[in-house]
This record gives sequence, structure tokens and C-alpha cells, in this order.
Amino acid sequence: MGKIRNILFIMCDQLRWDYLSCNGHPYLETPNIDELASKGVNFTSAYVQSPLCGPSRMSYLTGRYVHSHGSTFNGVPLPIGENNIGDFIRPLGLRCALVGKTHMAQDFEGMKRLGINNLSEIGLLASECGLEPFERDDGLWPTQNVASNYAYNEYLRSKGYAGKNPWHDWANSVEGPNGEIISGWYLSASHFPARVKEEDSETSYMTRRAIEFLTEQGDKPFLLHLSYIKPHWPYIAPAPYHNMYGHNQIISANRSEKEKRNVHPILAAHMKHAEARNFAIDAVRNNVIPTYMGLVKQIDDQLGYLFSWMNAHGRMTDTMIVFTSDHGDYLGDHWLGEKELFHECSVRVPMIIYDPDIRANKTRATKNTSLVESLDIIPTFLDTLGGLKDKEHLLEGHSLVPLLHGKETILKREAVFSEIDYSPKPARKYLEQEPARSRGYMVKTQKWKYILWEGFRSQLFDLENDPNEFEDLGASSQHQTILETLHEQIFDWIRNAANRTTMSEDQVRRRTGAARKKGVIIGEWSAIETIKDDPDSDYWME
Amino acid sequence: MGKIRNILFIMCDQLRWDYLSCNGHPYLETPNIDELASKGVNFTSAYVQSPLCGPSRMSYLTGRYVHSHGSTFNGVPLPIGENNIGDFIRPLGLRCALVGKTHMAQDFEGMKRLGINNLSEIGLLASECGLEPFERDDGLWPTQNVASNYAYNEYLRSKGYAGKNPWHDWANSVEGPNGEIISGWYLSASHFPARVKEEDSETSYMTRRAIEFLTEQGDKPFLLHLSYIKPHWPYIAPAPYHNMYGHNQIISANRSEKEKRNVHPILAAHMKHAEARNFAIDAVRNNVIPTYMGLVKQIDDQLGYLFSWMNAHGRMTDTMIVFTSDHGDYLGDHWLGEKELFHECSVRVPMIIYDPDIRANKTRATKNTSLVESLDIIPTFLDTLGGLKDKEHLLEGHSLVPLLHGKETILKREAVFSEIDYSPKPARKYLEQEPARSRGYMVKTQKWKYILWEGFRSQLFDLENDPNEFEDLGASSQHQTILETLHEQIFDWIRNAANRTTMSEDQVRRRTGAARKKGVIIGEWSAIETIKDDPDSDYWME
Repeated sequence: MGKIRNILFIMCDQLRWDYLSCNGHPYLETPNIDELASKGVNFTSAYVQSPLCGPSRMSYLTGRYVHSHGSTFNGVPLPIGENNIGDFIRPLGLRCALVGKTHMAQDFEGMKRLGINNLSEIGLLASECGLEPFERDDGLWPTQNVASNYAYNEYLRSKGYAGKNPWHDWANSVEGPNGEIISGWYLSASHFPARVKEEDSETSYMTRRAIEFLTEQGDKPFLLHLSYIKPHWPYIAPAPYHNMYGHNQIISANRSEKEKRNVHPILAAHMKHAEARNFAIDAVRNNVIPTYMGLVKQIDDQLGYLFSWMNAHGRMTDTMIVFTSDHGDYLGDHWLGEKELFHECSVRVPMIIYDPDIRANKTRATKNTSLVESLDIIPTFLDTLGGLKDKEHLLEGHSLVPLLHGKETILKREAVFSEIDYSPKPARKYLEQEPARSRGYMVKTQKWKYILWEGFRSQLFDLENDPNEFEDLGASSQHQTILETLHEQIFDWIRNAANRTTMSEDQVRRRTGAARKKGVIIGEWSAIETIKDDPDSDYWME
Repeated sequence: MGKIRNILFIMCDQLRWDYLSCNGHPYLETPNIDELASKGVNFTSAYVQSPLCGPSRMSYLTGRYVHSHGSTFNGVPLPIGENNIGDFIRPLGLRCALVGKTHMAQDFEGMKRLGINNLSEIGLLASECGLEPFERDDGLWPTQNVASNYAYNEYLRSKGYAGKNPWHDWANSVEGPNGEIISGWYLSASHFPARVKEEDSETSYMTRRAIEFLTEQGDKPFLLHLSYIKPHWPYIAPAPYHNMYGHNQIISANRSEKEKRNVHPILAAHMKHAEARNFAIDAVRNNVIPTYMGLVKQIDDQLGYLFSWMNAHGRMTDTMIVFTSDHGDYLGDHWLGEKELFHECSVRVPMIIYDPDIRANKTRATKNTSLVESLDIIPTFLDTLGGLKDKEHLLEGHSLVPLLHGKETILKREAVFSEIDYSPKPARKYLEQEPARSRGYMVKTQKWKYILWEGFRSQLFDLENDPNEFEDLGASSQHQTILETLHEQIFDWIRNAANRTTMSEDQVRRRTGAARKKGVIIGEWSAIETIKDDPDSDYWME
């Protein structure tokens, strides 16, 4: 184990925290991810800053809450002024690159305003969260909008999968019982195998692309963001992963009839979405979840190859590895599908960190229940590589290095926070809300989860006595004190966002009271007989 | 009266709202400003977003709260990503220029990160809030730091005022009774005349520079920000303005012995500053305030020249004129000097808007008591010139045009908000606060003023029954309900800041529920037999 020179930052898309064997799944075996956990620390209480791809990823990649970076939902450009992971890490000498998905939308108007050519080196990096796009692929390609130069399609065509959009027609479509082609967009297709061979599927392709990057990079330092598109829908897996699990290996839905009584209006609106209504049907869950599990299993197998390669090439001794996800998946829990709300299955993610430093030996194979946020990742990288202190006024998370090194056992954090902007969802129309007010905010402590909704009553769950989150106590008169406390906690959090981004705490400290030294004399009577600022005066403190 | 083509945006520095004859000052006559008020609307309840030069001006010049733009105190660079007044107005075809002060600090690091040369055209504009610096002068030039190419110094030297820093040695110094030179930094110097002739003083010079700009511009459309440095300290006026007013024409200090009892810790800390302790002495007030009044009088006289020139050149018929200030001045009120806290004399400003449009005829010479904020100015300009709708998601104020045109009599706004970051002040050290937590927030309704301080109890004033703000009800058990209501109002305000800056409300509306049209099919079972999103379903609303 040597000095850390590289970062491998692995993200899955829509992977629930509990769909790993190291996190307790009773049927899904993920030995390679488990082995990473056994070499590192498994943070079992990790939360994303928004349970939705785009805003969650922008928090991972900027180190800032959604409220601070402003990319509030998918497709909302990250403002050009925001610092990103490349801005933080590249100056330390690491090549910062991407293989896979970011969901970044470029701030074309902002670049235009500042005269930045979006095809220049800086323009390209600013369009990709600072990551050199070794392979950029957001993984959703409706045929009507597919880019003509989409690399994975070009790869598939080179392998003989024909057509304008083999991503859809082959990798995310299936052959039905009568030889008909069924689109993978539909849940009814999930139990059939993808029309591509396993080696040509997205997860395998992306892993090979990562190894190509690592090969090209050799011994030169890097940060690689390997960002898998799966197990996000289309829920289509190549053989043999499409039927590796049976219906009897599905965890039953975490839902209760009592959730439907006095249901919160925001939930009720989301329950009208097709995905919620379909996942409420057991036959749908039975058709989809085995494939979801297979997609996770495939990622685990591919990570096995990747970690073997890294081991053989000396990279396991000088590379910090993070394994996580951008959010979870309801899969029918709480009578919902998709994500975007704040139940554990949506907002909680796996978070495993492997630190090859010898100082981390004492924490290997441990679980840590500290409340962790996705925006702790960049401070952890900077603390590992050096250079955290100058950026602390910009970053809203905490370094996890003291935990990795066993200097601290629990992070000094009372609560984690998450936000959602549901304005592009049909739910907003059902609720007749204006876009700007279609927001919700979650605070979660070890015991409580409180959710503040603009325009509607709040929600409250007692996670100790109701870990399944069936009973919404938001209207409970017996819980007024805790409701007020958690409400105030969100207020404290949101007003103390890191908004003074252009001056560090130390710079401010040096300025405090320094006007006079710079020759600016304020409110003094004369040079010879004067009242000056007097820290010891208690004249008015009587 | 014709179509508005130009904007003249006049700002004074540290001018209290009540030091104008049209706002009720009993001794100070300001006939030219009064005449502007008689041609326009005098908004008598106007508030700045921060009672401090830099952050207040950045709100004026971005249309956003301090919490949103992030320039929280003097010298904190406005982040390069922020849109500014030039970005909003220049595309409409107006030349946008500055004569005087902005207190803008350039975000050199941000520009470097984005590859923007700070000497390029875009770099220069981004360094000046989008205003072409026809004459940039922030008005505070300690000799040890004076720029060698400072234009006003070059002007003074051309007029025979010698030395490295004639700004200080002549325009802001006086000759004492024994022929000695006394620096204008000291309050003891205020009753002597400046060592420059009136025509060479800052206010006269800046007015001439404005006229030079207007002359050069001819009939071509412009926005000119004419931003006077006075009556800000150094409190030095040229003859005859230095002794135009006598001690018997000073408004007595608005302060009470009862304010010293149980004084709030934040106020107590500020009361230890030299300016507070000196302005508590009547002899100091008697020495300074007549000069402060003289400086205002000089501005009024100079505006008389300017308005005459504009009248003679046809500019009064096609130019909207705003007259305001960046904040007030305690001048000994409440046992304080300077500004930076939230009493009316500090946070309230004059705000006169002259609109030459014929539709504004019915509101001329009226006063309007609507709660107005400094960030209403840019929406008012955009509403006047066209192009407001596309920018509303970025701008946090309201257009005042409906009030100017008499379509509405009162602005639909329950409260105004202001913020302060006192971290660079000695007060922070006395209070032993960390910079990031040295913040306060004010909400003011027509009846109440509530101030939330990080780390200390809140303050409350009943402005109806205690218009002088002598009685702090922040600890009153009888006021718990209103305290909680106003506290919640700040929370609502701060979490609903305009943070989704890269997508407009209309763009979001068009996206709502549009995924399927773009070919992204979420959670549907099959193409032929499917549950789709159903707005009419009340399945779960039982």
C-alpha cells in the first residue's frame, strides 16, 4: 500500500442502497463489490442531495447542495460560474476523465455571455463538469433524438448490430415469443434477454472503455469517473443476466395499505404516474425486479474484471476507489415507481470507499453508520490529495478521511439534507403548482425524517419506531415540538449555504479590522487625540 | 414626452433617506432633487438589500439578493457567473456606462478558471458589472494604495494640485487654524473647507464627466450609472458647502437612554467601534453633520446643472431617471456611526423615479409608500425597455412600472428583506464569531421589523407604536406569535431565492410531462395495453 495518486470514482445509476449482498440483500450476490467493502469502509447511511439523476450528480461533481449549484432537475444547465470536480482536482496534476454518464447540461447561454467558445478546451471541459469526455454516454437514446455520432451505436454497428439506433433496437430491445421485437422502454419486455451479447451490452462496453483509459494512462495520475448507466431503466439485461433470479428471490414490496389512507397530496400525485400504478401490480414487479437484480449482478462481475486488471497493473495500491449511486429506485415500495421522493429506497445510496493508504488499515472491512452526504466525496478527494483548506468555503460537505483513517469513528453531523424540484413531472400539473414553487426539502437525523413541501403540509417519519416509513406523522399534534425543531433545522441549513464563494474564511479573517492598516480611517476624531476601536471596552455592556 | 430610450441611474453614497427636503428635512433644501420628485414618483419606503456599499450595489446591479449573488461585503468579488446590469440592458441596444463608483471587485480567479482575459472586452465588462468604465472611481484612496493612473488625481494635478495623492492632500484634506494640513479621514477636520475649489471637488468633477458622456453619446441610446462618492466620508466639503449649515440646523440624534439597557450583543459590539463612540458625542455631530448636509446640497446643485443640460439637449423627454443611494448613515442615531445595521437611517434610502412616458402623467408629484427594494430597479428598466419576461427567473425584484403608470397604487409585496455580513468588522472579533456565521437578516413589513442574527437572539421593533426604534421586543414573551411569523417569513424568502438561473419558468412549463413526446417512456407496461399517467385518476385520493 503506497501513496494515493489516483482516484477511481464509480457510480451506478438508480442502484438502491440495499441491492448489494454486503448491504444485506438476501439473494443478490455481489462478491466483487463486497470485496471492495472488505478492503475499505462501507458507509451504510449515505444520502444523495437530490433523488434524481441530474441534480444529484451535479452535487457529487461540484461538492455543493442543489440549492447552491442551481441545476435543480434533469436538463437544467449547471451555471457556467460553478466550480466543478475538474477545477478542484486537475490543478493537483491528475488527468480528470469521464467514462459514462454525468447528465450534465451545458450552460450555453452563460458561455456565450462570457465569450467562451463551447468547442474550445475550456468550453468542452466546462460542458462536462470539468471531466475530459473519454466516453460520454448518458444512456437514454430515444430513436427520434439519437445523435448520429453516438459512440456506443458506432461500436454496436461495427459488431454487426444494424440500424439507425442499435442502442434501442438491440441493446435495449428484446425478441418476443413470436419473434417480434419489443421495445425495452416497456416493462413487459424485462424478462426477455437483450438482443445483444453480454460482451456488447452497455455495462461490459463501459468497463472495457475504462480499462482502455487506464491502459492509455499507464503510471500517470488520474481521476476517472466510471459512471455506469445501469441498473437504470430500460430494465433490459443481456443473457445470462436476464433470468438469473427467480420470483421467489424478490424482496417483497415495502408498502402498507395504511399508506393510502390520508395520503400526502404530493405522494398522491406521484402515485398517478404510470410507473407507480404499474409497480403496484405484483406481476409487474415479478417481471422487472429479477432483471434489475441481473443488471446489478452484471456490474459486479464487470467490476471483478476491472479490479483484477487494476491489481495486475499495480493500481490497487495507489488508487482510492469510491463505489456509489446517484439515487435509488422505488420498484413498487410505498406504491411508487422511479425515484424523486424521499423514502430510504430512493434517497439512500451505497457508498463504499477503499483507501489504499496504510493509515486506513485499521478501518478495513468495517461498516460506518455516520450520516454521509454525496457532497462529502470531493472534500474526501481533496483531503487525500492535498488542497482542501483553500476550497472549504466553496464545498458544503466534509472529508471522510478522518473516518477512513480511524481518527474519528463518527462524523460530527447531526443531519443530512436533500431536495427535489418536481416541476417537470406530471405531478406538478395535477397539483396545480407553479414551477418555481414545486420544491421539497428533506432533513434526516438518525431518528427522524422531516420533509418540507412548498404549498403543502410537512411529512414526518419516526425511523426508530417505524423504519419502514409507513406512518406519516406530519399532521400529528403530538409531534409539534419535533416538527418545529426539524423545520428550524432546514432553515438553519439553507440560510447557511456556502454563498460567499469568492473569498475563503482565512481571507476574511485576515481582513477583519484591517481597514486602518490599509490607510482607511473610519470615525476617528483626530490623529493625536482619538477614540479608537476598543475590544476591551464594556462601556455599553453595562 | 416621448418614448423612453435612455436610462440615467443616479446613486449617492451613504445618503440617508431623510436628508432631502422632499423627504421632510426641515433645514436642508434640495430643490433640484425635489423637482425631480415633482416630475416623478417619490418612493418613500425604499430599502436596500444590504446596508453596506459593496453588497448593496451588487444587488442594484444584478437584481438579486445578496444571498443569491454572493458578494456579501466590500471587496468580495462578484462571481463571474452572475448576470449583471450590462448583460440585461446592453442587448437592448443601449450603451451601458459608468461614471463614478460601483465597489465591484473582479472575480479574477473565476475569470482565470474560465480562460477569460481580464483585459479583453468581455473581461473588462465582467470586472465592472457590465458597465463600460467611462470613469470608474470608488472614492477611497489611502495614499499608501493610490493607483498611479487614478484619473481624478491626474485631473487635480492638471489644475495645479500637486503631489502623489491630491485626492487626499487637497480634495479630502483641510488647512487648520495654524496653516497645518489636517487629513479629512479625521472627523475633527470636517468643519474646515476642502483644499480644492468647489469646481475641482469630486461631485463637480463627476457631474462634468457625466455631461461629457452625454455629449459624446448624442442621440444614441444609453444607460448611464452616475454614481457619486459623496456624502460618504471623508466628510469634507469644498467652500461654500463646508459651512452652509449651522449647529441649530442639525436634526437631533434619534437615540434614547433606554436603548443602552439590555442592549443586543451585536449592537453592543458595533457601539465599541470608534465611529459609534465619537458620534455619541454632540460636539462630533456638530462638527460633521453640517458638512454632511453641505455635501448633499452640493449634489443637489450639481444635479441642477445636469438636469438643465439634459433639458436643453432634449434628454428629459426620452430618459428615465432614478435617484437613490446605496445605504444611509447613522450619524449618531441609536448610539452608532456608519451603517451596516438595520435601523431605518441605515437601511432605508431615497428612491425617486422620473418616467417621461405620457402614461406616467397621472402619478407625477406623488409619493408612494409601497415597500420597494433596490433590486426592483433592473426589472423596472427591463419592463420599460422591453425584455423582462425572459429574465424573471433570474431577477428577484418587481417592476415598478405599473405603479409609475398608475395601473396599481400599491406593490403586492408584504415585506422587504435585507442582509449583512459583518465578518470584516472588529465587532466580529469582540463577539468571537466565525466569519461564515457572522450574518444577520432583516424582514420589514409595514408594521414590524424583525432581525435574525446567527448565534444571538432576534430583534423586533413595532414600527407603528415605536417608529423611532427604541424598544427592542426581541425577547418579549408577549410577542412570541409575531416573532415566529416573521422568522418563518425569512425562511420562506431565503429558500425561495431564484436559484434555477439557467431555465425560465416558461421553459419548465413546456417541459412538464413532455418526456414521452421526446420518446422517453417511463414505467409503462406495453405499447398496446398500458397504464399511462392519468390526471383524472383519483385512485389513491380516496
